Amino acid sequence: MIPDTRIAVIGLGLMGGSMARALHARGVYVLGFDRDGTQLEAALRDGAVQEALASDLAGIATAEVVVLALPVDATVALLPSLAACIGDARLVMDLASTKNSIVAAAESAGLGPRFVGAHPLTGSHRTGWGASRASLFDDARVFLCPTRSTTAGALQLAQSLWRELRAGVEVLDATAHDDQMAWRSHLPHLLSSALAVTLRDAGVRRSALGPGGRDMTRLAGGSPAMWLPIVEDNAAAIVDALVACEQHLRTFREAVAAGDRAAIARFLKAGVEWFDGEPERVLTRGMP
Amino acid sequence: MIPDTRIAVIGLGLMGGSMARALHARGVYVLGFDRDGTQLEAALRDGAVQEALASDLAGIATAEVVVLALPVDATVALLPSLAACIGDARLVMDLASTKNSIVAAAESAGLGPRFVGAHPLTGSHRTGWGASRASLFDDARVFLCPTRSTTAGALQLAQSLWRELRAGVEVLDATAHDDQMAWRSHLPHLLSSALAVTLRDAGVRRSALGPGGRDMTRLAGGSPAMWLPIVEDNAAAIVDALVACEQHLRTFREAVAAGDRAAIARFLKAGVEWFDGEPERVLTRGMP
Repeated sequence: MIPDTRIAVIGLGLMGGSMARALHARGVYVLGFDRDGTQLEAALRDGAVQEALASDLAGIATAEVVVLALPVDATVALLPSLAACIGDARLVMDLASTKNSIVAAAESAGLGPRFVGAHPLTGSHRTGWGASRASLFDDARVFLCPTRSTTAGALQLAQSLWRELRAGVEVLDATAHDDQMAWRSHLPHLLSSALAVTLRDAGVRRSALGPGGRDMTRLAGGSPAMWLPIVEDNAAAIVDALVACEQHLRTFREAVAAGDRAAIARFLKAGVEWFDGEPERVLTRGMP
Repeated sequence: MIPDTRIAVIGLGLMGGSMARALHARGVYVLGFDRDGTQLEAALRDGAVQEALASDLAGIATAEVVVLALPVDATVALLPSLAACIGDARLVMDLASTKNSIVAAAESAGLGPRFVGAHPLTGSHRTGWGASRASLFDDARVFLCPTRSTTAGALQLAQSLWRELRAGVEVLDATAHDDQMAWRSHLPHLLSSALAVTLRDAGVRRSALGPGGRDMTRLAGGSPAMWLPIVEDNAAAIVDALVACEQHLRTFREAVAAGDRAAIARFLKAGVEWFDGEPERVLTRGMP
């Protein structure tokens, strides 16, 4: 489907910028917009975006696919007005990290049949066009969440687009996605933030850590503009995950305080057994 | 100092094996011992250890430097008998992750003047000779903890040895070392274990995680045989660090449950500000 397709990318940060670069590299004609004019100019200058859209998105009606690469809250806010201006686009897709409220907003906006929510499970603590790269989605896992009325054609188009970008696709319900992400993505991120804040209080700088400690605090560098809406949007599931982790920490800490060697050993071994459960997959890359 | 020096390495796992390989690559004559005969044979076969020591360590008296690469508890247990057999070695050094009880045991064993505790802040979740590599200490940070009676000559020898291995050396008191490591090393490790156990309960496999989640759970794969004695040896400081981190998690979780946007944002921003406090150092490598 790709060569000469016209695809609009709204938001040219890490995700949208990487999408624009990856599409451009495959012969797509990319229309781009970012409310930050310097990001948009950089994208045009680098040649990955061929045509700038104005802030009223005039011109977007010519795009066959529209990709929203914005924080969750901005995506939800844009969808109602988008419906009026996108013309005959066959597919509208967002890239945000939670899907439930976005899929619901797409349905409310009348975009249900041609909307597919997408969540690429990749990223970086770096943000903006400058952090984007054409290879960001190589071998990444991407979740696709259809609406109740998404057509088979729209879902197929979304799947073929991501496969073209070398990502592994998994289709699942938006609610199941958000519930799973509380454990698979949001909990790890928030533990990293908690570690960062704890080390700050203890006067430990990041450069004082070894490789393991640095890995454990990398996610804490993620953009609050992106993560605040994720946390708000998935609050109930995130609270459940945090409670479960806090419980394990407390139980373990009490075992350490009591000198309960058997309980300490059980905890450490349980972690290793889970870790050893599956060998490293060559598919999964480290981050830059 | 290095070429033709005779150095004995007791314990040929990740740390000791890497030490043997790095020393051998620099022309050292390496005498080695591991209670696991298959590890010792592999080390001899790979040529990094030139001479195997018997289990009574007969022959170790010819070594100028003795390196103990064992878990904390095994190191403490070995020191008393070691004093009787090491002859005129100018330096005895261990590589374990806590230093206070080991430095005390070295003093009690009468090894004080020629003992230096060493802790290289590097590692891997992989263990054993097979995981060792000559480059493990390249650019790593190494803490050196003298006893109350370590001679200037012994400390200088330890420093020059680590510099030869391309590690960055920091000399500090054993108690200060252990207090700092509770935050800089042990807390990150134990959070990783807690995350692993939490994900296990939630039925999430490690292969279901993205690059960030995988980084957050890598330390959980560390050997319990090494980590159990670390936790026991540094229990009080570890409890303090865990309490502080649990407090941040609880406060944050309550803010999420209450929908307190300002408090959620404050937490995320505090983490980013700490993260941004210092740019990445080229010196610090990722782990394999």
